[in-house]
Amino acid sequence: MTDSKPFAPPEFLPGWVWLVGAGPGDPGLLTLLALHALEHADVVVYDALVDERVLAMAAPTAERIYAGKRGGKPSPSQPDISDRLVRLAREGNRVLRLKGGDPFVFGRGGEEALALVAAGVKFRVVPGVSAGIGGLAYAGIPVTHRDVNSAVTFVTGHNAGGEVPDGLDWPALARGSPVLVFYMALKHLAPIRDRLIAAGRKADDPVAIVCKAATEQQTVLETTLARCAERAVEAGVEPPAIVVIGDAVRLRGGLDWLGALERGRVLDADPLGLKRRQEAG
Amino acid sequence: MTDSKPFAPPEFLPGWVWLVGAGPGDPGLLTLLALHALEHADVVVYDALVDERVLAMAAPTAERIYAGKRGGKPSPSQPDISDRLVRLAREGNRVLRLKGGDPFVFGRGGEEALALVAAGVKFRVVPGVSAGIGGLAYAGIPVTHRDVNSAVTFVTGHNAGGEVPDGLDWPALARGSPVLVFYMALKHLAPIRDRLIAAGRKADDPVAIVCKAATEQQTVLETTLARCAERAVEAGVEPPAIVVIGDAVRLRGGLDWLGALERGRVLDADPLGLKRRQEAG
Repeated sequence: MTDSKPFAPPEFLPGWVWLVGAGPGDPGLLTLLALHALEHADVVVYDALVDERVLAMAAPTAERIYAGKRGGKPSPSQPDISDRLVRLAREGNRVLRLKGGDPFVFGRGGEEALALVAAGVKFRVVPGVSAGIGGLAYAGIPVTHRDVNSAVTFVTGHNAGGEVPDGLDWPALARGSPVLVFYMALKHLAPIRDRLIAAGRKADDPVAIVCKAATEQQTVLETTLARCAERAVEAGVEPPAIVVIGDAVRLRGGLDWLGALERGRVLDADPLGLKRRQEAG
Repeated sequence: MTDSKPFAPPEFLPGWVWLVGAGPGDPGLLTLLALHALEHADVVVYDALVDERVLAMAAPTAERIYAGKRGGKPSPSQPDISDRLVRLAREGNRVLRLKGGDPFVFGRGGEEALALVAAGVKFRVVPGVSAGIGGLAYAGIPVTHRDVNSAVTFVTGHNAGGEVPDGLDWPALARGSPVLVFYMALKHLAPIRDRLIAAGRKADDPVAIVCKAATEQQTVLETTLARCAERAVEAGVEPPAIVVIGDAVRLRGGLDWLGALERGRVLDADPLGLKRRQEAG
């Protein structure tokens, strides 16, 4: 970026916290504001979903503090993290709170921000590309497509206690959107599948499980709703993963641009078979 | 960005189309890949939702082609736009197809990409920050929050023909997610409201209408589901707008960081009143 460009980022002031989404993985999906924050932060408090290549873009002098939650393992509690952000800000640091994806999409950014408000610490929010949209795009799966859906629902696969979220109206969820995108759903894939099928979702609905989306280790497993939990175990799929359910998955045959780029995959311009069906009358 | 940084963008090759999301408005929400594409494109084919400040970041020599759709006015048809992208690429240009928000969130990016596949034109997809997430964050509204929702649904307010989308299960939609985010819904707000209330959604559900989200002209109108359509007309609200329905809107009292920053708004650390209710026993 040169000075002639119309982007003049706000100054990252000492004593402030910037709550920033790092995007799903690819450093190219960082926003200009996120890069600016990385280059100017005194302290970077990051979670497990932040790609190492992104973290490497912080100033060499910046202190890096890991505040990740790892499924099943002891990890800093949410109040501990919030307290730490407040303390670091009060010490006069430029505090970058860096989260994978977007801080407001199942990222608990709102809770941390409210803790800052309670403590009188000033903050700014920098949205990021969410894994359930941008990560799926790297797998060649568009979350919306005219011939597939005019609604898409994003769901977290576990609640704060690590269980299948309660309070969800599963029948409404199953029927409300042709495309469902689950975050952090790997652990509870079997009960989620059971509830969706019991609620009327088709057993042969296409499913893709996208692991480490938009990172160099991205893998994509295509399966069906009925078989997804078993197939994930057989394939040894590990978190983090995004699970997408619905005909959007079929579009991958035409839109897996990364597969075409990296592995010479031949794309099908009619992945839903609509034109072939038309021509067949 | 300096050469020592671990971000090495892929070369934008002649004859390729990059299908890029520009984010909701603020140039700071451009991704590094989007900026790279702007700086190297020979032609930028952009739509109505791309902020002028973003467009100004294109190389001075780049040709700019407006391909926007304007509600109710004649505009290039989707096949016309796709044909143009193909033609420009075949002429050996580096073609940047720049869309507001994210190309795969009600952006018809999938359709354009499939047209490129059919024509044998090579392409890359660069996701962007979607207005329904990042734009709402600039209004202080988190699309998810632990005390509010574990699911959020994104819906387009009109179909390809400009009507209220058909094929939606409104009762399921109304009950499936505590938070609903409508794109391009201003025109059909009254029938959408009627269907949601008929389907059991509370008439006093909080609603925010966020216009020109994350641009310098951003406005936010807070109202209720029952009154939203009339209030939008009274206030002279104009598209583009994101309409969000549900208790996420109440969090704005604590999370309107931009209001705090620019207008000194005093934020409430307990916008849902949960702590006050607890203390009151």
